[in-house]
Amino acid sequence: MAKDFVKRSENYSEWYNELVSRAGLAENSAVRGCMVIKPYGYALWEKMQHQLDQMFKDTGHQNAYFPLFIPKSFLSREADHVEGFAKECAVVTHYRLKTNPDGSGVVVDPEARLEEELIVRPTSETIIWSTYKNWVKSYRDLPILCNQWANVVRWEMRTRMFLRTAEFLWQEGHTAHATREEAEIETKRMQEVYATFAEQWMAMPVVRGVKSANERFAGAVDTYSIEAMMQDGKALQAGTSHFLGQNFAKAFGVQFLNKENQLEYVWATSWGVSTRLIGALIMTHSDDNGLVLPPRLAPIQVAIVPIAKNEEQMNHINAKVEPIINELKARGISVTYDNRPEYKPGWKFNEYEFKGVPVRLAIGQRDIENGTCEVCRRDTLDKATLPIEGIVNHIVQLLDDIQNALFRRADEFRRQNTRKVDTWEQFTEEIEKGGFLLCHWDGTTETEEKIKELTKATIRCIPFDSAPEEGKCILTGRPSKQRVLFARAY
Amino acid sequence: MAKDFVKRSENYSEWYNELVSRAGLAENSAVRGCMVIKPYGYALWEKMQHQLDQMFKDTGHQNAYFPLFIPKSFLSREADHVEGFAKECAVVTHYRLKTNPDGSGVVVDPEARLEEELIVRPTSETIIWSTYKNWVKSYRDLPILCNQWANVVRWEMRTRMFLRTAEFLWQEGHTAHATREEAEIETKRMQEVYATFAEQWMAMPVVRGVKSANERFAGAVDTYSIEAMMQDGKALQAGTSHFLGQNFAKAFGVQFLNKENQLEYVWATSWGVSTRLIGALIMTHSDDNGLVLPPRLAPIQVAIVPIAKNEEQMNHINAKVEPIINELKARGISVTYDNRPEYKPGWKFNEYEFKGVPVRLAIGQRDIENGTCEVCRRDTLDKATLPIEGIVNHIVQLLDDIQNALFRRADEFRRQNTRKVDTWEQFTEEIEKGGFLLCHWDGTTETEEKIKELTKATIRCIPFDSAPEEGKCILTGRPSKQRVLFARAY
Repeated sequence: MAKDFVKRSENYSEWYNELVSRAGLAENSAVRGCMVIKPYGYALWEKMQHQLDQMFKDTGHQNAYFPLFIPKSFLSREADHVEGFAKECAVVTHYRLKTNPDGSGVVVDPEARLEEELIVRPTSETIIWSTYKNWVKSYRDLPILCNQWANVVRWEMRTRMFLRTAEFLWQEGHTAHATREEAEIETKRMQEVYATFAEQWMAMPVVRGVKSANERFAGAVDTYSIEAMMQDGKALQAGTSHFLGQNFAKAFGVQFLNKENQLEYVWATSWGVSTRLIGALIMTHSDDNGLVLPPRLAPIQVAIVPIAKNEEQMNHINAKVEPIINELKARGISVTYDNRPEYKPGWKFNEYEFKGVPVRLAIGQRDIENGTCEVCRRDTLDKATLPIEGIVNHIVQLLDDIQNALFRRADEFRRQNTRKVDTWEQFTEEIEKGGFLLCHWDGTTETEEKIKELTKATIRCIPFDSAPEEGKCILTGRPSKQRVLFARAY
Repeated sequence: MAKDFVKRSENYSEWYNELVSRAGLAENSAVRGCMVIKPYGYALWEKMQHQLDQMFKDTGHQNAYFPLFIPKSFLSREADHVEGFAKECAVVTHYRLKTNPDGSGVVVDPEARLEEELIVRPTSETIIWSTYKNWVKSYRDLPILCNQWANVVRWEMRTRMFLRTAEFLWQEGHTAHATREEAEIETKRMQEVYATFAEQWMAMPVVRGVKSANERFAGAVDTYSIEAMMQDGKALQAGTSHFLGQNFAKAFGVQFLNKENQLEYVWATSWGVSTRLIGALIMTHSDDNGLVLPPRLAPIQVAIVPIAKNEEQMNHINAKVEPIINELKARGISVTYDNRPEYKPGWKFNEYEFKGVPVRLAIGQRDIENGTCEVCRRDTLDKATLPIEGIVNHIVQLLDDIQNALFRRADEFRRQNTRKVDTWEQFTEEIEKGGFLLCHWDGTTETEEKIKELTKATIRCIPFDSAPEEGKCILTGRPSKQRVLFARAY
């Protein structure tokens, strides 16, 4: 176990921050609110990107790239949109520096002021819909199914690595359709892509649902989301897919001639997930010994550590391990063989455990004699001595088992921490324990905000699987026809 | 042939702009100097990225991500560096907008002024070396071999799509080493990686060399480059690799304890290629009929067009083509089967020709009867009717042939347009014809600048393969020991 590493039960928040930093995932930079994503953290993001990108392409999308800067006037075109983003914008006002007249460094050149300020994109609906205007003339030009991998900036006041940073990396899909129905189908399809990715790749169960009006994306008609439960019982919104109606088409005048030769406004969706998913991944599976990564996303899936007393033994082990490594690689498994002489086996064991490598093999002289090796799985820390013969098949199976076990464990945790609550007294008590509360709500923003003010809990979503049911709002007692999901959230 | 498409011989510059736009690669955006990279252009970039990324990883590098913003004071730390970039910086001065008191849209909130302005990165040496300071304590922490895929901004006054834009996409490698020698080896290794990529993947021959002092990267001790010749005879710098000495280590105080327990400054390199490569690719191979893409980078390598008079014929062709498509895909070849009924075969032929798809197959009713298909290669436009039996093997070979033929053609063109020139009179005459001129130069920046002023030609590099040779500077007549490469450049 890592030394001086704080336990989750002692201070969950500190445990998270320390884990991110000590596992080499990320660190704070010299720029307020911006992080440096270190190689190990970025390798995790690359694995996520690779799989998501494939899923986007399999559903017919293409990548493109739109400008980092948005003219200030564009942002104002859609009223709700600007309202939602204006308060946290990085604004470029000048395009040149010059030597300080007093000789000390450089200053902004006052003569190089931009006629119109540029906003560093917080999201790209406006710049993209101003572009789509030129791409769409007739129904033949639709649908447009574009995705962009990019950095965005939102000047958040309180930041935490991965979860909330001023700059973050994400993908944003922006699609244009001829009909409302087609756009709605697309919105839900992408929510389902995200849910599939979360569950099958991140081993993180999610609730699929629709946001209340109050929690909608600025400029959306409807926002669909996937919501995950972290180990402290708080909710984390892991992905959103927005049905934008014709709002942006109207703001930017994007019309098309339909088959009947009539002009219509185009229907829009947008959807995104970000490096925030890395935070979600960490807080779903990791433990007091460090990171726990699901095998399908782990940058290193198998680490092999030789235990040799001298060079001769090391040579024996090297020779024995080589075919195992080659076979694992041929099966598409990423493997590290760590025979660095400057570190001891115990140090390496701690290192790979802390970094969440799903499977660790250890091979010593006695193993060589017996034709065995020691296999340790990160999720349970169980160890077993197994024959080297057939070890690759065993590892392939074990990686699958770990992936499934992580999902089951998280799913079980979520089930245990999801409760139906019917009175206000019960609600205020239960919300302190964390977890998801399924409650009746009268459907008004006023009540929603009052509950938030009193308990810090928000409506995470109206779950799709919430059956119709007569009930009374936990706060106001007014009638309700369906339970919604309340939780405190990241 | 595409209608109304300007010829290279008429107006090379217009030909380029129109090609970029009509082939769907990119377009200018609403933001001055920033382009939109459209799906087809981005697919090309993805292919480039994929291969380069593999080559970086094969040479031991890892990806990471550093902040978009650089505190203004960081830029000033290295004197040459700030001198080189200060004049073209996008500067963030505020972090909030607010509703205009007069109710019309939003304005910058004067109360949300940053204490220190942030520069949108034009390159990341400064923010990265301020980070490396925390990563390096001892020789055991070295080398650091990081690469970053990112967007950067340089406020260029005159822009052209891909070649010179205010925002562009690139990769920047930043490495840290314990010894000068190791850093120099790294600098040259990455130059060679770029040269290999240019020649083997882009089919674009390049000259490897070192820059004159005047053309060095701002802050570098030495800049190595690869230089390509475009079809108009102008040079294009396609990639640079910088040996930075200890300049940035000194600017940011990055020291390490060596094996003798003494503090030393760290040695640095940086190296980058950008979306500019797409411009180079276009201007190396494309022709008056549109794009010509080397098979190894073409987003679509094979397009198959059915020619059917009715639905029955179309069904026959569909059935015949299916196994060909499956076999091509199984061989890793990207193929498009275009049986859209709303477009005619002739339109499709033009489309794929214009988009530079290396191989086009056409299959009609008579082909079905004869067991043949028509194969057209984009580089020569040669057509041949061939048996469907064995067609996949033929295509695989043909793609290889086209790749090689494109390189040979470009190499031959470069050879024909590279000349030794020994007098000033000859120089002024020859430079007007375009191409590379190998000339003696007295080694001074003064002469270099005078030649540029008089002829617009610059020293592209001192080629590695330029043999020692006694001679006299073409302008000043002063002694020289080696020819250097002069050209007009993009």
